[in-house]
Amino acid sequence: MSEVDRIGATYLLRTRLDPERAAKVIAGEQSSGTFVSLPGETAELTKRAAARVEALEEIEDSGAPPLPGATGDGELRSFRLRITWPLANIGPSLPNLMATLAGNLYELREVAGLKLLDIDLPEVFLDRYAGPAFGISGTRELSGVEASKPLIGTIIKPSVGLSPQDTAELVEELCQGGIDFIKDDELQADGPACPFDERARSVLRVIDAHAQRTGKRVMYAVNITDEIDEMRRKHDIVAEMGGTCVMVSLNSLGVVGLAALRSHARLPIHGHRNGWGYLGRSPDNGWGFQAWQKIWRVAGVDHLHVNALANKFWEDDDSVVSSARACLSPLFPERAWQAMPVFSSGQTIRQVPETWQRVGSADLIHCAGGGIVAHPGGVPAGVAAMRAAWEAAQAGTTLAEAAKDTPELATALEAFK
Amino acid sequence: MSEVDRIGATYLLRTRLDPERAAKVIAGEQSSGTFVSLPGETAELTKRAAARVEALEEIEDSGAPPLPGATGDGELRSFRLRITWPLANIGPSLPNLMATLAGNLYELREVAGLKLLDIDLPEVFLDRYAGPAFGISGTRELSGVEASKPLIGTIIKPSVGLSPQDTAELVEELCQGGIDFIKDDELQADGPACPFDERARSVLRVIDAHAQRTGKRVMYAVNITDEIDEMRRKHDIVAEMGGTCVMVSLNSLGVVGLAALRSHARLPIHGHRNGWGYLGRSPDNGWGFQAWQKIWRVAGVDHLHVNALANKFWEDDDSVVSSARACLSPLFPERAWQAMPVFSSGQTIRQVPETWQRVGSADLIHCAGGGIVAHPGGVPAGVAAMRAAWEAAQAGTTLAEAAKDTPELATALEAFK
Repeated sequence: MSEVDRIGATYLLRTRLDPERAAKVIAGEQSSGTFVSLPGETAELTKRAAARVEALEEIEDSGAPPLPGATGDGELRSFRLRITWPLANIGPSLPNLMATLAGNLYELREVAGLKLLDIDLPEVFLDRYAGPAFGISGTRELSGVEASKPLIGTIIKPSVGLSPQDTAELVEELCQGGIDFIKDDELQADGPACPFDERARSVLRVIDAHAQRTGKRVMYAVNITDEIDEMRRKHDIVAEMGGTCVMVSLNSLGVVGLAALRSHARLPIHGHRNGWGYLGRSPDNGWGFQAWQKIWRVAGVDHLHVNALANKFWEDDDSVVSSARACLSPLFPERAWQAMPVFSSGQTIRQVPETWQRVGSADLIHCAGGGIVAHPGGVPAGVAAMRAAWEAAQAGTTLAEAAKDTPELATALEAFK
Repeated sequence: MSEVDRIGATYLLRTRLDPERAAKVIAGEQSSGTFVSLPGETAELTKRAAARVEALEEIEDSGAPPLPGATGDGELRSFRLRITWPLANIGPSLPNLMATLAGNLYELREVAGLKLLDIDLPEVFLDRYAGPAFGISGTRELSGVEASKPLIGTIIKPSVGLSPQDTAELVEELCQGGIDFIKDDELQADGPACPFDERARSVLRVIDAHAQRTGKRVMYAVNITDEIDEMRRKHDIVAEMGGTCVMVSLNSLGVVGLAALRSHARLPIHGHRNGWGYLGRSPDNGWGFQAWQKIWRVAGVDHLHVNALANKFWEDDDSVVSSARACLSPLFPERAWQAMPVFSSGQTIRQVPETWQRVGSADLIHCAGGGIVAHPGGVPAGVAAMRAAWEAAQAGTTLAEAAKDTPELATALEAFK
């Protein structure tokens, strides 16, 4: 789809005006136009710099009320709108791409609803950005999880309130329980109640000792979210202590913050999408995940949260599956730059079969918090049950059938209904 | 309002459930709770780490449909909800503050609408962050605009498409026209069609020559939006060439990106809010400007865009005035950390009287693009008309009355209806 010298964006546009006119206002606002004709705005300049409306196709309207301040008294209609810009306007720069594709256009009164659904980037972005350094294969290599299996993960819970020592003890238990992956909660960062340095060192010591003993180095995504210099310092502590992953809250960092971390990092970057709701939950304002995830992958994220099936949040399964598949779709013909999708939110063994069936891949991290830790048989049983559930799903066996051979799965089926 | 050891946030909450229960789910999700009771979740831990619902007051509901995925079949009601968190959970860290106050809570199905309206930060943020280095007084000093007057500004238009040389010629004309302030459009960054280095150098040479000749150094907010290292390099070019301001697209940078620039910068940072629409336009999802602007001021922004009265966008005047006043309200008792509000969008002399009357301050930058450049008498007449309009407004004279003595204003009244 993408051209060599143009950048493209696809929007859901809702408007009460002549849609051709609304589309032209958007293209004008985001390139060479303004509200009055100006002396310097020659035909030649317009040809060189103007955004172009490439396609405008009517789709079914949701019937929701318009965004505030939308003008027009016509019927509210919905369109799929594609606009392209000359690459020469901004060059291959993600922050300036955002200002062009997702800037003032949301403010237009011609717009009764606007969602950025997808973007097309020319390959020159490959020269400027690094993309994921580890992705799927690098994550498998560092965690020792073979290619056909998902990483079974969990989240340190309670999210906040544990001391570094409490956390290390919990991690010890998780390691012994056979987990592949552990992440900090995004709320656990570097507060006085549980300072980063102490927590990271205590936990990573446990993980390293476990690795020395067993040969299995559990991947621990340590939440290093902070200002740039501090993040880099924290990343270095993790690396130095033998850690194999760092986690950040993407919306807190911003694209520029993530690229700055990426240029320094030598560990996989686990991207938490907390705050996604304020960007993507509204059906007719903001960002679609398909567009959003591309930007972070170019900037260098290795793992990306996609919620999970039958989650405790608002999102339906179709949306989750589509997000996971987006992360797994190659970004450029030359470089796939896949990010490993992270499934997390209210997960137990129950969601495993459908996750496998619908995503059609085990190149993912499946995190269960309570779904593992609250297993009546403890963590080892919780992990064993999750693994058994995946094996069953991948073999095409029902959980009930597989539970006959795996008591931990039977108990899990009783405990998590 | 703020306590020494707690962080506070006020939300608009819409829900169909028992509001007390919805509020508790939010507080739990964003601190020590999860969807099942966990072994480590003791009463003592909860007391230490839990978020607290401080106030829940019913307000009028908008009647809009709920966000997708909201549960409950009760009546949709709206509440003003205040929650506080122990500072000990995260410490004075803006990125982690965002994950706590504006993270996964937007995803909750208990929530049929959620907008972060305001935040209260304890003073310890003063120790960690630098705030605006220049603010109002520093901007006046650098631009030479005396205390009782607004900075009269304009935007390089067409936004994109001019060469560096074209831009320099336009700036020469603007300087000779008596302008105080010029900004790049947020779409003009560093594309091959108008590379930053060449543009910045050409323009700043013109500005410097004008300053040498006249003593007036026009403030030019050069758009340096880019990756961190590049932004710092560009900032240094601007400073070295005698420039007095740099501009960035805040939502592209992220809070962490801005703080990284602030730690390096020795020029005022002009904060463009493009993309604000996807954060703030929805009435029941996202961010309120009052909350949002505090975060950027703490991170160090000196100027902040607030749209403008009778603008070409969707926002109504009440909202614009409230945003401008928010930027001018002291942030902490000890340090005001005011940002200078920037009025820009479809401005001409027409909006001046009400801007003055309603904002009640001239501590602002008033930018008109077409409203100055497209004045029939050219730029000098355009600037003279804007100045005359402000003088009239501040003196309590109508524009029509003042136009009798100022032909440029009379022409502007004819040209901009």
